[in-house]
Amino acid sequence: MTNGQYHDVALVGGGVIGLSCAWRLAALGCRVRLVDPEPGGGASHVAGGMLAPLAEAWFGEEELLELGSASLRRWPEFAAELARAADAPSGLNERGTLVVGADSADREQLHEVAEHLAALGWEVNRHSGRALRKLEPSLAPSVHGGLEVPGDLSVDNRAALRALRRAALRAGVEFRAESARRVGPGRVELADGSELRCDVAVIAAGGRSGELHDGLAGVVRPVKGEILRLRRRPTALPPPERTVRGPVHGRQVYLVPRPPDGLVVGATQYETGFDTRVTVGGVRDLIGDAERLVAGLGEYELTEATAGLRPGTPDNLPLIGWLEPGVLVATGHHRNGFLHAPITVEAVAALLRDGHAPAEAEPADPARSGGQP
Amino acid sequence: MTNGQYHDVALVGGGVIGLSCAWRLAALGCRVRLVDPEPGGGASHVAGGMLAPLAEAWFGEEELLELGSASLRRWPEFAAELARAADAPSGLNERGTLVVGADSADREQLHEVAEHLAALGWEVNRHSGRALRKLEPSLAPSVHGGLEVPGDLSVDNRAALRALRRAALRAGVEFRAESARRVGPGRVELADGSELRCDVAVIAAGGRSGELHDGLAGVVRPVKGEILRLRRRPTALPPPERTVRGPVHGRQVYLVPRPPDGLVVGATQYETGFDTRVTVGGVRDLIGDAERLVAGLGEYELTEATAGLRPGTPDNLPLIGWLEPGVLVATGHHRNGFLHAPITVEAVAALLRDGHAPAEAEPADPARSGGQP
Repeated sequence: MTNGQYHDVALVGGGVIGLSCAWRLAALGCRVRLVDPEPGGGASHVAGGMLAPLAEAWFGEEELLELGSASLRRWPEFAAELARAADAPSGLNERGTLVVGADSADREQLHEVAEHLAALGWEVNRHSGRALRKLEPSLAPSVHGGLEVPGDLSVDNRAALRALRRAALRAGVEFRAESARRVGPGRVELADGSELRCDVAVIAAGGRSGELHDGLAGVVRPVKGEILRLRRRPTALPPPERTVRGPVHGRQVYLVPRPPDGLVVGATQYETGFDTRVTVGGVRDLIGDAERLVAGLGEYELTEATAGLRPGTPDNLPLIGWLEPGVLVATGHHRNGFLHAPITVEAVAALLRDGHAPAEAEPADPARSGGQP
Repeated sequence: MTNGQYHDVALVGGGVIGLSCAWRLAALGCRVRLVDPEPGGGASHVAGGMLAPLAEAWFGEEELLELGSASLRRWPEFAAELARAADAPSGLNERGTLVVGADSADREQLHEVAEHLAALGWEVNRHSGRALRKLEPSLAPSVHGGLEVPGDLSVDNRAALRALRRAALRAGVEFRAESARRVGPGRVELADGSELRCDVAVIAAGGRSGELHDGLAGVVRPVKGEILRLRRRPTALPPPERTVRGPVHGRQVYLVPRPPDGLVVGATQYETGFDTRVTVGGVRDLIGDAERLVAGLGEYELTEATAGLRPGTPDNLPLIGWLEPGVLVATGHHRNGFLHAPITVEAVAALLRDGHAPAEAEPADPARSGGQP
């Protein structure tokens, strides 16, 4: 690292991608300034934290499945390094995932996904309702069958963000609690009109990235997601130990455990611009769908209902590459920011090491080659 | 007032009852200290603010109906005085109430209540679904009939609490932001072990009153209620102008407008002690029941889900009277703290003026005569 050309990095965005890159680049010897009015906030703070490329797999998105799987393989080592660097828990939860269906159309959909994954060579285990209930006794009575995906994991997003902030600070990252307005070659314009000069600016600003550089305008868009946080009350049944997810009346819902007594239920998807207001309909649907998959949730405390803006892209793949000399981008991770963090960090480090190669990227369509395993 | 015997008053509890009494007694010339770690918090902060003795009427609770009606008659003047004294809005909303039913059993129940009220000489207007929809176009399609109760009003609880605090301050009330531990004749013991001496101590501590004096232990109990606050988003239908309420599958739900774009939806009822955690089941039921009565709520923002502890009594009537010489009580208003505030204030002022009369009260069963119109 520190090839001299790119020693001084200004990173815009303090979500999971920005913090992970900041930590790694500082550890590799760069000077790193991270610009975010509230690092660890935004969509990463709201996220469910699923590391589940298989359960998320969908026809025609084989590239996304490959990318997610490659990043998931890196997670245990990434988490161990993070915990060491931060001297704090990484939040990684290595219990697997159950994908279940509550009605026959939903189960039919699972069946198709299982066939699809099998054809691609991935291993998933089909189970009867009875077998699933042996794994997770709290599954709702309407669950009659589903898939066990032991390799799909999860991470406590807030524990991971705390650890990333600590690791970044310890590695020498300077936090600038300010808003960025625009990014250009080797410079970041702040909301107060001042400018940070650097060798390279990295845009990792999630759903707001499209506002920072013309090359991202209309490419990265905000996709609103609402999420609930639940906590077991003393009178309630224990939460499942694995992530439980599945289609309910065609809508995807997931319940991610936050041991010992928490559950995260997500997530709605709306294309409504920069609106982070939680809707009555979103909360109603999340509760109703979650109760179709897991029993006894009515007795849980509802501790939080929040919304975040995922950075969506036209093909649901992240954007990792050079926008122009002096400007890197690492965003567009949509629902997969935590999953893709380890491989994104690797890619960004490699891009900085190798320097800008114009043949690899056009400003309006940043190269994704760096993001491939 | 200030008959000399009871010049110096220490009031425990800064909810609607405590604040109203403090304001009035100070305006009458008493020295008043109000003890509450967070005046304007607690159940009064959570409340829906319905002033609806008729819509709340139930068989066998004729005393409560009389008391509520007598207090409601005093509300317009009380609100006008409050607004003048505080130089701030009282929050009174003089639009009436619709009581509707979504299924045939619920409508049958309304029919019985209407007959009951008619037999007692109260006026309510029965309407078809079409006539109701002319009054409130947002009523849900399942509403086929109901009652119009023009006299049942509502108050913006938080506006009223703000005004009461201001009025009390202007009248010279001293606020002591501390917790009371016990109350005895002419003294209030604070959590830090110190003591306030006074001529008379008034217990207006709502659901926690039972902990302050042996005469109230087991008489006043906390009754948990959960409530939602909604706000219209630009894409959503306007909220109703009147309070809309009714039984839904036998459960009572109400939607109280907070002009211009707010709605308060309440309320669950649980007997679970001093637990103010909002449950998943409570939120699910409130949303579901509210959507049965009013259309288009799914598009609203859910801004808040909170729980408070109403002060319940064995017969649902408030406790207003002397507990012993030097100790007055004004609590146990259950769902009706705002409704009963004007008449409670009158009663407390009269009790202080007339002094302690042992024949009127037994320590274990405080007199209610002061609370009757």
